[in-house]
Amino acid sequence: MSEIEIGRGKRGNRSWAFDDIAIVPSRRTRDPRDVSTKWSIDAYNFELPVLAAPMDSVVSPQTAIAIGKLGGLGVLDLEGLWTRYEDPTAALDEIAKLPADQATARMQQLYAAPIQPELIKARIKQIRAAGVTVGAALSPQRTAEFAKTVIAAGVDIFVIRGTTVSAEHVSKTQEALNLKQFIYELDVPVIVGGAATYTAALHLMRTGAAGVLVGFGGGAASTTRKVLGIHAPMATAVADVAGARRDYMDESGGRYVHVIADGGLGTSGDIVKAISCGADAVMLGSVLARATEAPGQGWHWGAEAYNPELPRGERVQVGTVGSLEQILHGPSTSADGRSNLIGALRRSMATTGYSDLKEFQRVDVVVAPYDA
Amino acid sequence: MSEIEIGRGKRGNRSWAFDDIAIVPSRRTRDPRDVSTKWSIDAYNFELPVLAAPMDSVVSPQTAIAIGKLGGLGVLDLEGLWTRYEDPTAALDEIAKLPADQATARMQQLYAAPIQPELIKARIKQIRAAGVTVGAALSPQRTAEFAKTVIAAGVDIFVIRGTTVSAEHVSKTQEALNLKQFIYELDVPVIVGGAATYTAALHLMRTGAAGVLVGFGGGAASTTRKVLGIHAPMATAVADVAGARRDYMDESGGRYVHVIADGGLGTSGDIVKAISCGADAVMLGSVLARATEAPGQGWHWGAEAYNPELPRGERVQVGTVGSLEQILHGPSTSADGRSNLIGALRRSMATTGYSDLKEFQRVDVVVAPYDA
Amino acid sequence: MSEIEIGRGKRGNRSWAFDDIAIVPSRRTRDPRDVSTKWSIDAYNFELPVLAAPMDSVVSPQTAIAIGKLGGLGVLDLEGLWTRYEDPTAALDEIAKLPADQATARMQQLYAAPIQPELIKARIKQIRAAGVTVGAALSPQRTAEFAKTVIAAGVDIFVIRGTTVSAEHVSKTQEALNLKQFIYELDVPVIVGGAATYTAALHLMRTGAAGVLVGFGGGAASTTRKVLGIHAPMATAVADVAGARRDYMDESGGRYVHVIADGGLGTSGDIVKAISCGADAVMLGSVLARATEAPGQGWHWGAEAYNPELPRGERVQVGTVGSLEQILHGPSTSADGRSNLIGALRRSMATTGYSDLKEFQRVDVVVAPYDA
Amino acid sequence: MSEIEIGRGKRGNRSWAFDDIAIVPSRRTRDPRDVSTKWSIDAYNFELPVLAAPMDSVVSPQTAIAIGKLGGLGVLDLEGLWTRYEDPTAALDEIAKLPADQATARMQQLYAAPIQPELIKARIKQIRAAGVTVGAALSPQRTAEFAKTVIAAGVDIFVIRGTTVSAEHVSKTQEALNLKQFIYELDVPVIVGGAATYTAALHLMRTGAAGVLVGFGGGAASTTRKVLGIHAPMATAVADVAGARRDYMDESGGRYVHVIADGGLGTSGDIVKAISCGADAVMLGSVLARATEAPGQGWHWGAEAYNPELPRGERVQVGTVGSLEQILHGPSTSADGRSNLIGALRRSMATTGYSDLKEFQRVDVVVAPYDA
Repeated sequence: MSEIEIGRGKRGNRSWAFDDIAIVPSRRTRDPRDVSTKWSIDAYNFELPVLAAPMDSVVSPQTAIAIGKLGGLGVLDLEGLWTRYEDPTAALDEIAKLPADQATARMQQLYAAPIQPELIKARIKQIRAAGVTVGAALSPQRTAEFAKTVIAAGVDIFVIRGTTVSAEHVSKTQEALNLKQFIYELDVPVIVGGAATYTAALHLMRTGAAGVLVGFGGGAASTTRKVLGIHAPMATAVADVAGARRDYMDESGGRYVHVIADGGLGTSGDIVKAISCGADAVMLGSVLARATEAPGQGWHWGAEAYNPELPRGERVQVGTVGSLEQILHGPSTSADGRSNLIGALRRSMATTGYSDLKEFQRVDVVVAPYDA
Repeated sequence: MSEIEIGRGKRGNRSWAFDDIAIVPSRRTRDPRDVSTKWSIDAYNFELPVLAAPMDSVVSPQTAIAIGKLGGLGVLDLEGLWTRYEDPTAALDEIAKLPADQATARMQQLYAAPIQPELIKARIKQIRAAGVTVGAALSPQRTAEFAKTVIAAGVDIFVIRGTTVSAEHVSKTQEALNLKQFIYELDVPVIVGGAATYTAALHLMRTGAAGVLVGFGGGAASTTRKVLGIHAPMATAVADVAGARRDYMDESGGRYVHVIADGGLGTSGDIVKAISCGADAVMLGSVLARATEAPGQGWHWGAEAYNPELPRGERVQVGTVGSLEQILHGPSTSADGRSNLIGALRRSMATTGYSDLKEFQRVDVVVAPYDA
Repeated sequence: MSEIEIGRGKRGNRSWAFDDIAIVPSRRTRDPRDVSTKWSIDAYNFELPVLAAPMDSVVSPQTAIAIGKLGGLGVLDLEGLWTRYEDPTAALDEIAKLPADQATARMQQLYAAPIQPELIKARIKQIRAAGVTVGAALSPQRTAEFAKTVIAAGVDIFVIRGTTVSAEHVSKTQEALNLKQFIYELDVPVIVGGAATYTAALHLMRTGAAGVLVGFGGGAASTTRKVLGIHAPMATAVADVAGARRDYMDESGGRYVHVIADGGLGTSGDIVKAISCGADAVMLGSVLARATEAPGQGWHWGAEAYNPELPRGERVQVGTVGSLEQILHGPSTSADGRSNLIGALRRSMATTGYSDLKEFQRVDVVVAPYDA
Repeated sequence: MSEIEIGRGKRGNRSWAFDDIAIVPSRRTRDPRDVSTKWSIDAYNFELPVLAAPMDSVVSPQTAIAIGKLGGLGVLDLEGLWTRYEDPTAALDEIAKLPADQATARMQQLYAAPIQPELIKARIKQIRAAGVTVGAALSPQRTAEFAKTVIAAGVDIFVIRGTTVSAEHVSKTQEALNLKQFIYELDVPVIVGGAATYTAALHLMRTGAAGVLVGFGGGAASTTRKVLGIHAPMATAVADVAGARRDYMDESGGRYVHVIADGGLGTSGDIVKAISCGADAVMLGSVLARATEAPGQGWHWGAEAYNPELPRGERVQVGTVGSLEQILHGPSTSADGRSNLIGALRRSMATTGYSDLKEFQRVDVVVAPYDA
């Protein structure tokens, strides 16, 4: 690491964002038709290394099914509107129409409705019935409370997702989730995060997680850096966690934990860069919120936006660019990296001569921050 | 330090602003309710590590009392309007209404009124009567003239604050304040600054000061860098002065001098970063000027703005975001780092696993300038 | 190279754009009238080190002739409108009038018309008849199909140009062009690219190419970085390929392969910098699209803009600044680096004391990114 | 020097602009009244280290006299309007009223009028008659032609100023000025430049010049970087030339050549930084063009703007901020670093503890580019 002395009393590592890097072709090119974008985790196989983020603007039961049929994995937020309201349509409509200066306060109210366990079951069963792999997410705070309901309802891949999730949560007043024991007792593979450093990720890997989400507060709808001062530029975060994957594989005698970039992925180019830094897959928020089918109706927000005490995110307008199919598979009629994401990934792999995702993690990159 | 050769005849250290760094969580998280933000200096204990800056847009006798009751320390500027006018309401009203092109010139006139020692006494007594800790500030130029009045009136913590305050002020024509002797003879703890380098701070610590203010010309209302070419990016300044604190503690056989970041603190994230670089507390200007109770009525300025010969600051419009209580303790209904400052600090400490401020100075930071 | 650790799992070289560097005069200056800008490749001699890029907005048969007469080399795109339409005037007019939101989709349609071999012949003969050197370009994908037609029609310099062209293209389903054998069997000199790294360029040089185009996706009309994540800042790319030229000259016993910067050349200053980094000549797009004679009529686009599946470029408005002669030879009545390009190059060489282009590659440069 | 590998074939030094650095106070402060800003070159003494740049927007015979009386040195451009027109008032009025798109072309015409030797004499005598030190400038191209006239008319300090002036100008067709012989034969001290590197400046010092102007193309009205690719960030340029001054002093057995920063000086802070990097004095353009007395009437331009073939500068609107006296000596009623320049310099010296300009060259600086 290139450690920098900030001042006599403090040092820190220089970290890089996706915008700071680019990939470069070398001596070989390849036919895009020979390229594979397949990804597998545990017993589940996917045509695309794409998870849709558990955010109400992105994943509804319907879009979870649609994304599954297109080759990815939609992850439903089990603490969002779909488990608080029998029919969240009115709430989604209202959010899409709120004036900017009232949005945060009104969303704090809308999300104050209680979570209903029977709705958790109903949503999971609806997705399961469509024949796609079922992914669903809880925050670490609510995992103990609802996990049994979720498993019983038939989730395939369980996601524990918070701004920051650590292997060791300390509390004097509340019994904290013991991640290691929880995962050990569970029958389904668990993906957990966010984490953004080598050490944090290594400890999460040791809990038995099948995958680690990399990132916190880097997304389009987040203001975590401004509010909490916390930030982890994604290129460095992914590369550091990929380093932890390698070391943990050695330490564990060969267990491969998947590294899933989660945040800062605004264009197809960012997806390419995430994999070039070592990601096995990506969790997408804003780029999928731009789908015509997206429940956010052109708006995008995460759980940070409606925290009752300390909102650390905002509802942002992302617009609509095409169907989920066009966004993932094209064809594209614009050149902004917001549609035909997988076509672009395939083309990048071909142009740099790689034929599968694991090999593509070795592509050459350059550091070139100031040339947009 | 990473010293850079600017050219054959000159070298300088690379320095970093709060915007250039971020803090990062690691392997442990903590319950925010278990976090303490207490701070003590000399015999005075505070719930919050927050001093309100001695600026007329921020601290009036009323807001000094309010801030004290909320757990911080309001520091009244004894060379501002409150000691020049029996009732400064009209002047404050006028400043809030001045057209931009007349503001500086008119403020130069308003602040030309003489300082009245009896008003110094009255203001201090008013604050004292409310039962809060009394903080009040003079510039080094006027300290000799008014200090006795201030002490007699019953100040608890005496602040000597200028753009730059040194331990050794040289003048051929005027007897300069001998800081060391002055502080030695005084009964009350003295906080002195600004200073922004290891050497300058070390010399101030040797005068016997209880605390050192770090920063000069970095505030929202300052143009010192443009006018004087003087600037000290705050992350490096705080870390350097924290280094001086450590070395001085060794040299003095254990005297702990408090490091108080003063300038460049525009959001809760900046407060978090100041402490992560080694600050014990922060002195806040613009963020408190946004309170509904703030005397500036949505405007903010410092003494630099009305210097009669060479203004080095401006009256800037900061707007109003909520009550002092909301700004300090929330709840917040916006996500811009301008309210629930202490909630955000508490959350940052919890997310990174720390339970008190002194420990939190050790949190990991990264250098990541270009990713807003 | 200054290699940087992005994170534990990834390293990359720091790379620089033309905007990041500048050239500096030293102890000697020279009379601009004593400066030569001559350039030769194979048996062809040019007064100017300038190739016009094979893009429909820049090179028509008429402008190819005009540029030839002004001392440069116009390269016609043999896969553009001129070989798809008997008379492309209507298509060019339409493109110049398309609303922004329909441009990409309509261009995808217009360029779907088939390439007609007889038009390839006709266009080349038209240019040849005017007595100038004939340059024409195909993409690597279509080179095998049309190369014989092109050679038979009498091309002087054959250009194989794609976003990325490698010496080794791998395909399971299609026989790829064997560049080395193709060039060996051809009677005319071949210029091939883009490439942007030492390794990629060295392999292209080994195919027998007379020149290598440096760059991909760096042009004014390109969004390759956003869509594919691929980018190579031009100052580093040119300097790296110039390094390959030197090493290949040694390895080959003295064969000198020309390095031609292609992309990122928006002003006369950029042309100067390309040569200062080691380019022998430059291929110009947007700056020539600003000519009154340019077929783009004030608009500029490349083949990336009308890719049927994954557009990676856009039609951009560049405006019109003067005749081709004014743009190349002046006089200029504006100071924006967009006219009198060769006068500026001559002046830069004179100011830094150099009299020919090869010597000028040694001029001193500084790295100074942030001072526009 | 921190040399950087741009690519395999090219290296360059990292260079810094005034905006990239700042000065920092240290352990001592001083009374501003004890500070001296005196400067002497040859037998001439000045209260201020300020030369007004030989540009028609800044120096007329009247403002040369005014600046002299205020303590500086006005340098008249002997190739400007004042030596081409008996009464240039109409031309100056016209320039101030030209529409933006016609400005360059019309200025090219206005400056095509021939230089009249008798006007050179008249202008110099007019300034001389007012009792101030007389400074006047020619370009190196016209120096041989007009120098005798200038000396005979009674110039005190002779300035040879071009974008780039070297000690060795090479021409096949024209006899070049032999600077060394010319200066040796002259009776008056010569200031010569611009130069921006150690080597270029060292050679200029060896010609016998009394002072060297540092900078080229860095001024507010210049586009040299865009047009010619030539640029030298000023902090590094001044520090490098100051290094040459030190080495030349050793080599020459003690001759002290003055280093005069010329370009990039837009605020009082920039003047401070120039001296902190080793400048003995500054030559000011745009900041003095903002005087109510300035002939430019709120506009500013240099000779680059009306080059007949290749303009490399523009007429820019700078506005008017106050009288020459207010700009130099204050008082100031704005905080933008554009008035009370000398008051600001004095204050910076005092704040950092220095009492004369030569000592102030040793002040501590930091490198801090990204924090405006």
